[in-house]
Amino acid sequence: MIQYQVLNRTFSALSDHTRRDILTQLSRGPASVSELAGPSTMSLTGLKKHVQVLEEAGLVVTEKVGRTRVCRLGPDRLDEAAHWIDVFRARWEWCLRDHPGA
Amino acid sequence: MIQYQVLNRTFSALSDHTRRDILTQLSRGPASVSELAGPSTMSLTGLKKHVQVLEEAGLVVTEKVGRTRVCRLGPDRLDEAAHWIDVFRARWEWCLRDHPGA
Repeated sequence: MIQYQVLNRTFSALSDHTRRDILTQLSRGPASVSELAGPSTMSLTGLKKHVQVLEEAGLVVTEKVGRTRVCRLGPDRLDEAAHWIDVFRARWEWCLRDHPGA
Repeated sequence: MIQYQVLNRTFSALSDHTRRDILTQLSRGPASVSELAGPSTMSLTGLKKHVQVLEEAGLVVTEKVGRTRVCRLGPDRLDEAAHWIDVFRARWEWCLRDHPGA
């Protein structure tokens, strides 16, 4: 997959607060889909769809263990997204120095 | 606007490579919509829609100067987005130390 497509998919996956919450929960350790749902009012079906988006973006991996699907953080460490933002912010600072009124 | 909504809108604005290209171009200085279009095959109408999404996210501001609409980078420096990613990555590192197999 071309790099811009990877970034499109990563930023799109991050553009929903439920998906960001799932990532935050998994940063504390692996969890089943039911554990991720917790006391929230979201249906398991809705939650599974969010997990699938995260899985397609490489941010989460899931594995069937017995009758439970266990989710954990995936191989994508948001390196590309963090790098894009860092480069943009550095350029922006430079632009402000060069065009103070910009 | 609640913080999670700001993040939703920022990451959503960044999820399209044309919009990221516009931000990169504007990091070199202000530009009109026509200048942003350059030799690309995208219609001006299509480009204006992307600029509008960026404007709604606070990433770009536009100003009518005579018959030209000038675009420049807006007040949102992606601080919130960069912070969210930094915190997530730090937690993820911690998780890996605590759950080496995770």
